[in-house]
Amino acid sequence: MDKRRLEAFSDGVFAIVITLLVLELRLPAVTYDALGRSLLQLLPAISAYALSFLLIGMYWVYHHHAYTFIDGVDGVLLWLNIVFLLLISFMPFPTMLLGRYPGQTLPVVFYGCNLLLANLHGLAMLLYLKHAPQLASRRLTPVLFRRQVTVYIVVNSLYLANIGLAFLLPRVAMTIFAAMAVYLMVRSAMVMGIGTCVPSEPLVHAGESSVAPPRSGPHVLVSE
Amino acid sequence: MDKRRLEAFSDGVFAIVITLLVLELRLPAVTYDALGRSLLQLLPAISAYALSFLLIGMYWVYHHHAYTFIDGVDGVLLWLNIVFLLLISFMPFPTMLLGRYPGQTLPVVFYGCNLLLANLHGLAMLLYLKHAPQLASRRLTPVLFRRQVTVYIVVNSLYLANIGLAFLLPRVAMTIFAAMAVYLMVRSAMVMGIGTCVPSEPLVHAGESSVAPPRSGPHVLVSE
Amino acid sequence: MDKRRLEAFSDGVFAIVITLLVLELRLPAVTYDALGRSLLQLLPAISAYALSFLLIGMYWVYHHHAYTFIDGVDGVLLWLNIVFLLLISFMPFPTMLLGRYPGQTLPVVFYGCNLLLANLHGLAMLLYLKHAPQLASRRLTPVLFRRQVTVYIVVNSLYLANIGLAFLLPRVAMTIFAAMAVYLMVRSAMVMGIGTCVPSEPLVHAGESSVAPPRSGPHVLVSE
Amino acid sequence: MDKRRLEAFSDGVFAIVITLLVLELRLPAVTYDALGRSLLQLLPAISAYALSFLLIGMYWVYHHHAYTFIDGVDGVLLWLNIVFLLLISFMPFPTMLLGRYPGQTLPVVFYGCNLLLANLHGLAMLLYLKHAPQLASRRLTPVLFRRQVTVYIVVNSLYLANIGLAFLLPRVAMTIFAAMAVYLMVRSAMVMGIGTCVPSEPLVHAGESSVAPPRSGPHVLVSE
Repeated sequence: MDKRRLEAFSDGVFAIVITLLVLELRLPAVTYDALGRSLLQLLPAISAYALSFLLIGMYWVYHHHAYTFIDGVDGVLLWLNIVFLLLISFMPFPTMLLGRYPGQTLPVVFYGCNLLLANLHGLAMLLYLKHAPQLASRRLTPVLFRRQVTVYIVVNSLYLANIGLAFLLPRVAMTIFAAMAVYLMVRSAMVMGIGTCVPSEPLVHAGESSVAPPRSGPHVLVSE
Repeated sequence: MDKRRLEAFSDGVFAIVITLLVLELRLPAVTYDALGRSLLQLLPAISAYALSFLLIGMYWVYHHHAYTFIDGVDGVLLWLNIVFLLLISFMPFPTMLLGRYPGQTLPVVFYGCNLLLANLHGLAMLLYLKHAPQLASRRLTPVLFRRQVTVYIVVNSLYLANIGLAFLLPRVAMTIFAAMAVYLMVRSAMVMGIGTCVPSEPLVHAGESSVAPPRSGPHVLVSE
Repeated sequence: MDKRRLEAFSDGVFAIVITLLVLELRLPAVTYDALGRSLLQLLPAISAYALSFLLIGMYWVYHHHAYTFIDGVDGVLLWLNIVFLLLISFMPFPTMLLGRYPGQTLPVVFYGCNLLLANLHGLAMLLYLKHAPQLASRRLTPVLFRRQVTVYIVVNSLYLANIGLAFLLPRVAMTIFAAMAVYLMVRSAMVMGIGTCVPSEPLVHAGESSVAPPRSGPHVLVSE
Repeated sequence: MDKRRLEAFSDGVFAIVITLLVLELRLPAVTYDALGRSLLQLLPAISAYALSFLLIGMYWVYHHHAYTFIDGVDGVLLWLNIVFLLLISFMPFPTMLLGRYPGQTLPVVFYGCNLLLANLHGLAMLLYLKHAPQLASRRLTPVLFRRQVTVYIVVNSLYLANIGLAFLLPRVAMTIFAAMAVYLMVRSAMVMGIGTCVPSEPLVHAGESSVAPPRSGPHVLVSE
């Protein structure tokens, strides 16, 4: 499987699910007089729509970023990716729950679990690259590897804590999810660079070529 | 983020939302005898479908055109683009409102706000390029920049005035939106060229190369 | 607008609408005991689904074929193409009608009109190329042009006659539409070549290069 | 028809249908108090969703693999492919049946028939390549051809036997379908290679170039 074909397929799934979200915005058949109130009642659903749209957009940016660490795709990375796409494609369902039952525990828990599982993909991919370093790009230096693993563990721990919080204070937990989303979006924009055309590649050590190296040659990840 | 990948992703979202629109054409479960009348009652929905289809097609052409002004994508342009796609992906919802409540104020206002917000993207992008000229193409000359900004301000002002008009005369406002759409389509065809294969690039000064210049070199936009 | 980008966008719309069709297969909420009969009652809808799927597949092949006659896309061809995609994207609606009201006149008329209008696109494109020959490929020789126009006029006349027939004998007209679809599919397979890898290009005169010529040089279409 | 364009179109259909599946997860309009039980009742539908998602993902990998045996596409292969896509695109329908009527015979039979027919595509393609060896890649050696045909016959026989079993023990048959899916996924991962970047090409004889050979030259398949 060519890495580029897997990326094109994933981009397709991202583009479709992000666009399908709107179909879950169902307006009950009301008379025009009641339309204003119906639209107001749809506000939580529209907010959930916007949040999921931006989150899936963020996962798309993140996915693109993650694949700059990879030179080749094997059967395991392929299926890790398909399971990741399953979790992303599932998001319209908890998004619909959030819109229908605003401020309730179960939808927030469901939504949080979906985010958590989708997020675990990045961690699983990194850990697998540790065992199959010949698939990793030289850009994934040991320093960068540790930093990335740390970020994933911190974010996932926050997600987990927040899921717990949803049992007590669902509205607060939901607000924290939204705040985390905004933070991760801003962060993704900063990783992409502000005002510069630097492609979304991880920081590399000075003197290291930014061009993708051939697969031969020692991989820094294992030589650590 | 490669500019081409962002364009491919955006093209995907455009193609999906333009095709999803048809799913909002819901026919009530009637007997065959009542089908003719049901189809007639669906006429406003079918008109709204066609209008939104052509408008999204027009935004697709416009998006393609706008990205000829850009040489590189940074984190801000990326997220401006994702928010733009959110507004385009949302269009099936107000389109459905238009079809269900023809001739009423609220759907026209909703539809107009959606168009207005989507249109603001182009303005935001241009203004950001003013602050990050290193991302802009040399084709975006100061003259062209001013002309483009003027067009956006005029169109957005008309949209805004028309939204106001919808509170008084919703049918007239809707007709004006449709007329503006037709005008913008004809204009986009003329920008593309009639009878010529000129690619959809802005007019450039004589002697300027039509090939995308490398990112280095002085940018005309800032040297103004 | 790059010709290739327009083709990629059109391919996207074809792929989406062909896949969306299945969403119109709605099974009423029945108990398991009644499922068998419900599925039997869905048979017309499933047949209509399969017919539309194959017809849209055929239009995709035809669209690909038609664009081998074109070297460049101008504003008129672009909008002709967008209107064509509108008509293709609309097909799930009459397909749903066919499935819901099998053997009735109105759905067959609706379906036939959709096919007829979609088919007119090819004719309109050819006639426009006559007026803008600088956009046409040299492969579109005067002989080929006349043959293509003749095929379109014959097929569209049959469609029109068949729509008329639907007012008297809807089931017969529907059978003729299906038979025409099968014939057009077989024909498209033969144009593509059987057992040979000949790309889907029109027959060219002996000695003429099969490689797309540059846009300069005399165009055979006008020199007639 | 360029082979690559057919692959891109097929990838598009795969990406769309895999993402559409989620739309069949319909939650009845219940109060929040009943939501937990409603979600539990949706568990079979969610399982069917996940199974179909992974199976379609597997068909995507398989499709990619199958096209490494092909150098060129003619009219027959094109239409075989479109019919295959029809069968893949249809999968949301039996998936919905599985979710609505868990543990019943009819949905399992329907689902199994869909899988069986989709699987026959690979066999039909191989047998056609036997008659049109000029379309086959040199990688498809006689040894590989026999092995592939054997695999298809075994898998299809198991599918057929399992469909029969569904009339007696639908739950057992469903479990066997799921187990086969898991096995085929693991197998596809192994064909792709574990820990190696070997592209998903069939095993080739030592000394044979792994680069796609030009279409000229003797084809091993017929010289047998």
